This record gives sequence, structure tokens and C-alpha cells, in this order.
Amino acid sequence: MKIYIPATSANLGPGFDALGLSLSLHNRVSITPSSLGSISIKGEGADRPRLKTHNPFVSIFHEVYTQMSGRKRSFRFEFENKIPLSRGLGSSSAVIVGAIASAYHMAGMRVEKENVLNRALEYESHPDNIAPAVHGGFTTSIVHEGKVYTQKKSLPESIKAVLVIPDRPMSTAKSRTQLPKHYSMKECVNNLSHAAFLSATFLNEQWDLLHLASLDMMHEERRMRQLPELFRVRKMALEAGALMSTLSGSGSTFLNIVRTEEAEGVKAVLKKAFPEYRVDTCAFDNEGFTIENS
Amino acid sequence: MKIYIPATSANLGPGFDALGLSLSLHNRVSITPSSLGSISIKGEGADRPRLKTHNPFVSIFHEVYTQMSGRKRSFRFEFENKIPLSRGLGSSSAVIVGAIASAYHMAGMRVEKENVLNRALEYESHPDNIAPAVHGGFTTSIVHEGKVYTQKKSLPESIKAVLVIPDRPMSTAKSRTQLPKHYSMKECVNNLSHAAFLSATFLNEQWDLLHLASLDMMHEERRMRQLPELFRVRKMALEAGALMSTLSGSGSTFLNIVRTEEAEGVKAVLKKAFPEYRVDTCAFDNEGFTIENS
Repeated sequence: MKIYIPATSANLGPGFDALGLSLSLHNRVSITPSSLGSISIKGEGADRPRLKTHNPFVSIFHEVYTQMSGRKRSFRFEFENKIPLSRGLGSSSAVIVGAIASAYHMAGMRVEKENVLNRALEYESHPDNIAPAVHGGFTTSIVHEGKVYTQKKSLPESIKAVLVIPDRPMSTAKSRTQLPKHYSMKECVNNLSHAAFLSATFLNEQWDLLHLASLDMMHEERRMRQLPELFRVRKMALEAGALMSTLSGSGSTFLNIVRTEEAEGVKAVLKKAFPEYRVDTCAFDNEGFTIENS
Repeated sequence: MKIYIPATSANLGPGFDALGLSLSLHNRVSITPSSLGSISIKGEGADRPRLKTHNPFVSIFHEVYTQMSGRKRSFRFEFENKIPLSRGLGSSSAVIVGAIASAYHMAGMRVEKENVLNRALEYESHPDNIAPAVHGGFTTSIVHEGKVYTQKKSLPESIKAVLVIPDRPMSTAKSRTQLPKHYSMKECVNNLSHAAFLSATFLNEQWDLLHLASLDMMHEERRMRQLPELFRVRKMALEAGALMSTLSGSGSTFLNIVRTEEAEGVKAVLKKAFPEYRVDTCAFDNEGFTIENS
């Protein structure tokens, strides 16, 4: 079998730990039963020998597979990774979701998206990356008693992402410790009102409202201070016509949402201004993970 | 002229200061030029003599009328008030919105809803009651630089409100001082994720998700402690089939959203359990204020 899992962008503006979306930038994993277990990695992570011996995808896959099928078995895993590591593009969630879904499939279970999502929550406590990795599109999620509830909106071809991917990661753990433990009433009301409004903005496709809707007072600027060039990325992206410009996940990538006809223009401006960063246009993904028999 | 202004229910669950909806329960005000200024009041407020001498509707009306028309003039105001006072049903917002819109109209201005809403923000700093009083339906709003941005969803006839209106008010001012100045990360994330999800729930008409979507951790239970019977109202309403049961505004009314075919049943249960409270079914309003020439 082959499984494709999309990159995702979470913590969307005011939607800390709640809102996310799925990008058409996929990891592909090919899995075949094999008397000798083996791992090959192309693309992101190929230069990390530790991923051959301690691979989180393979660990989770075996854990779930053994539980589902009631037996242990060896497989060959071939990774072709396009999702950059530690850049706020959901590479960990892609691993978790991909491993669970493929283990279900290889164990002969019906792969229900709901089940994969709820199982993924055992490995990642926030739903904002795993929900779009499973369902695709823009997602708004809540968690109750260990269960994720998600509403999804497919995104049209008329908008695209322009990703600015710095040459350095930002540590999620470090990033989270830099956040305060408490927020003022004003910060709290800002984020809840904007998260609700941003949700409506995506559902109603009111793209002109994205910028105002996406203003955050909880995490974004505190995290951007780790990499102050990001303030310049945001300013230039908005001046160049981006509809919304926010930190992707806990960074370091910046997600700019643009009208499709303006994508190349915004990309060119940012590429020129930040030659040391990777700047890519990217469509949105509306499928979430997909499985191919082979 | 006559103006009709709907009751509204704000602070909707997790949507503190942000989400609201409009109820088909209206104040009617008839305004006619008259050489002698006069006020008559029927319904709510008729027993408050102070409203004849210090009437906030009349004050705001004159302020806006004089500014718009450039002259002072006397009017006869006839109020027929159906919105209970100080019960969390938006009676103050109805006054503000109604006075501004009717002053525009009497001054010969085109009454644009956007303008009325932004002007109303000068009298009430939170948009969650004034937005649905202006636009009707379910509204999600943000405020930037003194301007309100609102997205509205009309509500279908398949759902109704069952209002439980206690015989006592809860003071908004007192209510607000009982709220903490700071919230934990967990409370903050709860409310922003649920507010975003609740917004999507209304837009997608996913009524079965209303209950989970409406859980709040900022204000509701703290306020309900002022009138502990409300915990029993909520419990019984949900057991009787309410889709969602939340404090309306800062109380004391409880708003229960129900499927229309279950409205009478839920009403009967609550009326029996709380004979001292007013219990009414009410449709949702999708128009906001309306003006009739006469």
C-alpha cells in the first residue's frame, strides 16, 4: 500500500490549538510486508540516521498494527517526505495520522476517518494539526472526553498558500514555554471573537475579511520574537497583497493566504526579500490522507 | 413612523462579548412630530415613572436627530415594550439601536444598517447584542478601530427558543465584577475553540452539535451562582430535549434552543418545574430592526 498525508498549518491566527488547514504538500509512505523489516527515506529526514533506527512512524504503525491484527509482522517502509521537519507544517501529525491509518489498512480494518482522528489524539493532545491531516480543508475542532469533533470546509482553487519557510526551526516545546500561563480578559475575548469570526470567514468565503479575522493576541507575536525577521515577512506579505499572513503552527514557517492570481507576485516579492528562506506557493488539500493499494 | 426592534441573546455560550442571536420578541416605538414632546409607555417599563422623565431612547434619539438634521424638534413617543428589562434579553441594545435608526429616519437620512451598528457601538462597547438587533439571525462579530464587522446567518423555522425568564434580574455590572480579570490557558483555549466551533455549527446547521459546541469556561457558571436555580433549569432543559441551554447575555434569562416540534414539550416541562418563572417559546428573528412609515 501507499499512503499520502498532507502538511497542515495549525494555531491559525487566533485559533490557538483549534483551527487548522491542510496543504497540498504530502509525505508518501509505501508499506509492504517483508520478511526483513527495513526503512528507506528520501527527502526530508533522509540526512538523519536516527530516523532509520528510531522511526516514530514505524513505532506507531507497529503498535497499532499489532493491537488491531493481534500479531507482529515485518514490513518494508519507503518514505518520500516532502513536509519540512520542525517548521510548523505538521510533520509530526502527518507521521501519527499516516501511521495509524496505514496500520488499520494493513490489518485489514476499514479505515474510518473518525476512528483515525480519535486514535491520533492519543499521540497528540491538540486537534488542530491532526484534524486537517485526516479530513483536509479548513477545520474547526473541539475535544470532549477524549473525542475530537471537527467541522470541515473545503477550500476553493481561487485561493492559495504562499509559504515562507525559514532555514531554522523554532522549537515547539521552547515556543510553548514562552507563552504566559494566564491571559487577560481582553486577550481572551480578542481570540475567541476572532476565532469565531475567522471560522465564519472561511465558511462564507469572505476572503476580504481574512486579515482582520486573523488577528491573534495569545501566541503569535510572542513566538515571532524568536525569529524577528518574521515581522518583516508579515509586513511585506500583506503589502504585496496577501489576504492573511500568520505564523504556521508554532513556526518557524509563515503561512500567507493569497488569491490564486496573485500567488506568483507575492511569492516573487518574498523570494527576493528573503533569499535565504524557502518560498513556495502551494494549493490547499481537501482530502486529508489518502490510501492507494499497490 | 414606527420602528420594531428585536430582543437579543448575547454572550452565547463560549462566545463572550462576541456571539449573539435575535429573537422574535419586539419593542415597538411610534414616533410622530408634535409641538409638545410627550412619552407614553405600555408593557415593560410602564410601571417605572422615571422612564417618562429620563428615557434613554428619547435622549439618544434627540442627540442623533439633532446632529443629523442640524435642528431641534419635539416628538411624541409611544412605546409598546415587550422585551423584559434587565433580564439579559438585550433591552438596552434595543433602545440604542432603535433610537439611532429612528433618528436617522426622522432626519431624512437613508438608514444603512452598517452605519446604525457602528454608531450603536458608541453607546455600548460590545457588539454581541447590537449586531443581532441590527441584522437579525445569528451573528459573529469583531471590533476594529471603532468599527464592527459582523457575519450573519439566518436561522431556519425548524428551531425555536424556549426562554426561561426568572422573576428577578441579575445586574450586568455586578455580574461583570464577579468575573476574574485573568483566565488560564485552558479556559482561554476552551472558549476560543468552542466559539469557533459554535459559529460553524450555526452556519452548517449541525444542530446535534450545539450542546457540545456551547460549553463555556469564562462566565456562565460564575454568573449562574447568583441564581442557583439556573443550574436546575439547564439540567432539566437538556434532559427534556433542548439542543443547547445557556445563560442569555449576563442573565437572568436562560435561552434554550430546541427543535420546533419539541418546543411545546420542553416549555411544558420547564413551566411545571418553575411555576414562578415566565416560560415562553419564541421564534428567531432574521430581520433585525424594521421601520414602517405611518
